Amino acid sequence: MTTLNIVILAAGRGQRMHSDKPKVLHSLAGRPLLQHVLDTAVQFATGITCVVYGHGGEAVPQAMTKYEADFVLQEPQLGTGHAVQQALSHLKDDTLTLVLYGDVPLTQPGTLEKMLGAQQALTLLTIHLDNPAGYGRIVRDSAGNVSCIVEEKDATTEQRAIHEVNTGILAVSTHLLRNWLSKLRNNNVQGEYYLTDIIAMAVAQGVAVHTVQPAHEWEVVGVNSKAQLAELERTWQYEQAHQLLVHGVTLADPARLEVRGKLVCGRDVEIDVGCIFEGDVYLGNGVRVGAYSVIKGTRIGANTYIEPYSHIDQVNIGDNCRIGPYARLRPGSKLHNDVHIGNFVEVKNSEIATSSKANHLSYIGDSSVGSRVNIGAGTITCNYDGANKHRTIIEDDVFIGSNTQLVAPVKIGRGATIGAGSTITSDAPEGELTLSRAKQITLPGWRRPSKKNNIPQ
Amino acid sequence: MTTLNIVILAAGRGQRMHSDKPKVLHSLAGRPLLQHVLDTAVQFATGITCVVYGHGGEAVPQAMTKYEADFVLQEPQLGTGHAVQQALSHLKDDTLTLVLYGDVPLTQPGTLEKMLGAQQALTLLTIHLDNPAGYGRIVRDSAGNVSCIVEEKDATTEQRAIHEVNTGILAVSTHLLRNWLSKLRNNNVQGEYYLTDIIAMAVAQGVAVHTVQPAHEWEVVGVNSKAQLAELERTWQYEQAHQLLVHGVTLADPARLEVRGKLVCGRDVEIDVGCIFEGDVYLGNGVRVGAYSVIKGTRIGANTYIEPYSHIDQVNIGDNCRIGPYARLRPGSKLHNDVHIGNFVEVKNSEIATSSKANHLSYIGDSSVGSRVNIGAGTITCNYDGANKHRTIIEDDVFIGSNTQLVAPVKIGRGATIGAGSTITSDAPEGELTLSRAKQITLPGWRRPSKKNNIPQ
Amino acid sequence: MTTLNIVILAAGRGQRMHSDKPKVLHSLAGRPLLQHVLDTAVQFATGITCVVYGHGGEAVPQAMTKYEADFVLQEPQLGTGHAVQQALSHLKDDTLTLVLYGDVPLTQPGTLEKMLGAQQALTLLTIHLDNPAGYGRIVRDSAGNVSCIVEEKDATTEQRAIHEVNTGILAVSTHLLRNWLSKLRNNNVQGEYYLTDIIAMAVAQGVAVHTVQPAHEWEVVGVNSKAQLAELERTWQYEQAHQLLVHGVTLADPARLEVRGKLVCGRDVEIDVGCIFEGDVYLGNGVRVGAYSVIKGTRIGANTYIEPYSHIDQVNIGDNCRIGPYARLRPGSKLHNDVHIGNFVEVKNSEIATSSKANHLSYIGDSSVGSRVNIGAGTITCNYDGANKHRTIIEDDVFIGSNTQLVAPVKIGRGATIGAGSTITSDAPEGELTLSRAKQITLPGWRRPSKKNNIPQ
Repeated sequence: MTTLNIVILAAGRGQRMHSDKPKVLHSLAGRPLLQHVLDTAVQFATGITCVVYGHGGEAVPQAMTKYEADFVLQEPQLGTGHAVQQALSHLKDDTLTLVLYGDVPLTQPGTLEKMLGAQQALTLLTIHLDNPAGYGRIVRDSAGNVSCIVEEKDATTEQRAIHEVNTGILAVSTHLLRNWLSKLRNNNVQGEYYLTDIIAMAVAQGVAVHTVQPAHEWEVVGVNSKAQLAELERTWQYEQAHQLLVHGVTLADPARLEVRGKLVCGRDVEIDVGCIFEGDVYLGNGVRVGAYSVIKGTRIGANTYIEPYSHIDQVNIGDNCRIGPYARLRPGSKLHNDVHIGNFVEVKNSEIATSSKANHLSYIGDSSVGSRVNIGAGTITCNYDGANKHRTIIEDDVFIGSNTQLVAPVKIGRGATIGAGSTITSDAPEGELTLSRAKQITLPGWRRPSKKNNIPQ
Repeated sequence: MTTLNIVILAAGRGQRMHSDKPKVLHSLAGRPLLQHVLDTAVQFATGITCVVYGHGGEAVPQAMTKYEADFVLQEPQLGTGHAVQQALSHLKDDTLTLVLYGDVPLTQPGTLEKMLGAQQALTLLTIHLDNPAGYGRIVRDSAGNVSCIVEEKDATTEQRAIHEVNTGILAVSTHLLRNWLSKLRNNNVQGEYYLTDIIAMAVAQGVAVHTVQPAHEWEVVGVNSKAQLAELERTWQYEQAHQLLVHGVTLADPARLEVRGKLVCGRDVEIDVGCIFEGDVYLGNGVRVGAYSVIKGTRIGANTYIEPYSHIDQVNIGDNCRIGPYARLRPGSKLHNDVHIGNFVEVKNSEIATSSKANHLSYIGDSSVGSRVNIGAGTITCNYDGANKHRTIIEDDVFIGSNTQLVAPVKIGRGATIGAGSTITSDAPEGELTLSRAKQITLPGWRRPSKKNNIPQ
Repeated sequence: MTTLNIVILAAGRGQRMHSDKPKVLHSLAGRPLLQHVLDTAVQFATGITCVVYGHGGEAVPQAMTKYEADFVLQEPQLGTGHAVQQALSHLKDDTLTLVLYGDVPLTQPGTLEKMLGAQQALTLLTIHLDNPAGYGRIVRDSAGNVSCIVEEKDATTEQRAIHEVNTGILAVSTHLLRNWLSKLRNNNVQGEYYLTDIIAMAVAQGVAVHTVQPAHEWEVVGVNSKAQLAELERTWQYEQAHQLLVHGVTLADPARLEVRGKLVCGRDVEIDVGCIFEGDVYLGNGVRVGAYSVIKGTRIGANTYIEPYSHIDQVNIGDNCRIGPYARLRPGSKLHNDVHIGNFVEVKNSEIATSSKANHLSYIGDSSVGSRVNIGAGTITCNYDGANKHRTIIEDDVFIGSNTQLVAPVKIGRGATIGAGSTITSDAPEGELTLSRAKQITLPGWRRPSKKNNIPQ
């Protein structure tokens, strides 16, 4: 990894976001824009990382406490050059300084490596746009060397026809940067100090301006509005879907897949339409995920089939399981191999051992379930007494009859059977039938109520 | 608001719709095509509104009874000019007459205002199309004045190259309209009376033909088939999504949002993929709506989080609530602040006060639930006795154990606790534990059934 | 139907699929690629069908056992000409031979009919591509006759400008095919025998090369990667959606519809966004299908409304039913007219007669339910005793109170009422109220537990 200074400009207000949140804290693919840039920085280089923040106040550093970065307040905000000036005292002189933007989230490490590889005194990231309108054009002399950057409004007709534009991302000798920043002037309409002006200084001093281009246009797209955020989200989701396809994942529709984190797939994985993956998700060989499932921070073993509309959060699922449809698996749960969890079943903070089943309308919370257990429809573990939560233990080979309440703390012994409709408040012995049941009676002569004026529906 | 006559032509059969319904009653964004036009008319002007209907008979006026409009039958249907003739006796002479089309649903008030603002004797809505094939071209003289409209089939090669076409929408002096319509002839292949022919009459009389263009092409798109209906639906949905983005709403995917009515959002609202909004929906500041939720006619307070797959219809939800996933909230329900409704829970015609929770597998119907109530998993309010519906009253601070049935009418007193698995048929006193429970027993020596030939699965 | 030999080349490895499955077994629209080709072959012609397989070994013939086709192993794989050579001994001399490809799934019968209609000695399927790069160009002489096929790498600049390319699909006199194949040489870089080389032989012999073009480009698109598979899936889904629109089905979004089988719709059918249809599905007149529903192998009668998120598999549903939201109907179920199945209700292998309702949180399995039955919330048929499944019989006009367990085998007599919360283990007589219920008691002085250190959530 390269050692360098990274300055991330993250002070912008983002007025067009129409939000109380600072712009750089809005999320793309599940992470704040700034976090994308910091993650790239961490992955790419060691050394100083300095985030210049401003609008939104302490919300920015508070949201990024997990990063070892220096947070420098820019107050007031007097332009990009002024922003970098605030960071200068943090920077080490003996390395290059890379300037990134907290609202340009997707610049890839490979592109930054290209910029820094040659250790030039000044490297600018530029891009050729089909429609360069609005961007600063890269003007080159007859030898092809950058001679200046001309803003749209100052450009001649000829210059406006230039398709190569400035992205603002640059790497520069820290020593030169200090020197140039000290000479910046704000004699422009906005009264701001522009970082871009250092290019002219470099040219004036005879310092060559090297240029590098990113592999994809989306690497340099900035976000200034919710429309741009939505557009970049789609671009990035499509890019991720494409990567999964290249690795052999079957996607029913690449345009209807959300990956908000990191999705790692084994071989022969199939993902139906409309699925959402958040955080770190691993799908083993042969896993099939049914339509409209939401899966967060979960590991799923080989050949498990997740049926449609399953909602799975922070769970460890074994091989050959069958989950859903409409299954809700909540954090802290671990399902071993060959487990079946069916429709309208919620599992929370529970371990379920091999070959056990809970196929219908049940709530399994704070429980330890053994192997080969059959949990009947409508079973509820009563884990909460209004103040505290207690555990339910169900040993191997138990059969729980339908509509049973297991009032925790309670243990159902190995091989026990619980009769349907029971409320089990004390431990049930191994191997025996335990139940609580009132006698079935018929009341002769009873008459069903007849229709009156109903209360409103 | 302008005072004028509005004539809406809505007599077409719509054969390509392959439907038993008249064309103008097919829905776009949740409202019949004709209703869009009537809503625009109501919003835009006072005066006479006259709907000319034909195919489908009385279905059209019956579907629009809430509008103060005159419905005039055109029978037989002999062309657009003939259709307007049927309306003439309803029109006031001292105002302009605007002719709209029941199958052109999205003409915007701003465009109509532009047409009527100058109170010209004849104003035609025209549009420049990249591909004008099939439309009547607007032919202008050297001074730029409209000289005639030439239909595709009659057009010279030069005229076919004209990109400005007739939309059929026009505003005209009612006096002139009467005069011109009386002179219409049907000496054409179809034997129909064309409203467009009045343009030639105007030119012949030296009446200037003013033209106005709409801001968007979709404002003048007509619907003649299900494919066109689907296309215009997507265009309009995308337009609405774009408006939400401009106002600062975060949309995970603007192409996967349905707004079939009016969606008003506070600040920092986030809507995940695939949500559907119908009728009037209000989302307060900071509301987040999870993927694939369906929300109709509902008001949701600030910072409430709707988890995925929630289905909410005609409900008033407070601040800081947490709903879903898989929550079903039905009409007549009101949730106060800080209420939690969890998975596989249905709430119908019930009021739930502050900080109460029903998190799992429950049915709460025709109930009044107090504050800080905990409703255990599997609780069911038995509101229906086969003939009548009755109310359940649960007072503040009650704890309902799991799998309890509350047989209405019944009241659970303040601070009462109901034991799990109880069937509560009479009122439970305040502060005490009430339950109905059979004794738990174990039957020693009972043996589980062994496998026989199963009935077919 | 034409009588002919069909040879389907299906030996390819599909390395870019990154899969353990042979390429031709990957699914498009719910059927393996090869199955599409075989289904077209069956539909189009009688005679010999010969599948040449190779990579993946016996998986290919084993997956296609339902087809009357000869499976011929090509081992090793030495090119397309070599592949057809393996099939030669199976072919009849007196008919034409049509060569198709197992990874080109969507060639339509109409296109093949055009190829074979004139019974020419050699007919080649060609297509004009906007971007022909990478394909063999069809070179024609001044009279317009095919003179040769030039591969991209051998093509002159002029030839590269040709937009007509070879699809590889051809029909040929079997007699000539034998003759030409016997002369194939593999003196090329890959050392393979190319079927395409027979075109040059035909030209050399003066046999006219007739050409035919398909109606759509997607008919000749091959699948070599998951990205191509996903792209062709979307193309085909869009094509199917378009056909439904043309027939008058209302689709909320043609881009969000999956048809993986055959969907037949009556008049005035409406399908909301995100629905998935698998196998043979029939929707009667006026059926509405709510968003995100999954429907497989099911027949739905007129005017039935399926609410969102319904999951229906192998069910026969009558007219005027109301299903969902969140209803799960499983195989072997039959619902008569006017049945209501509501939220969080699972029905399996059951028959439910006219006008019966199960609206909330229930499991109805292996049951026969009569007419006008009301099944209360939380009702569970306990059909499984841990070893065997038993049936529940509920006769006409029964009222089942909420949270009832019906322990099968059991019969509830006509007009009977079951009290809420009952466990019914023996038959309930007609017309009477039957229940099992413990007495409701209040324990004075009981105190609710107070908060301790909870177990982890």
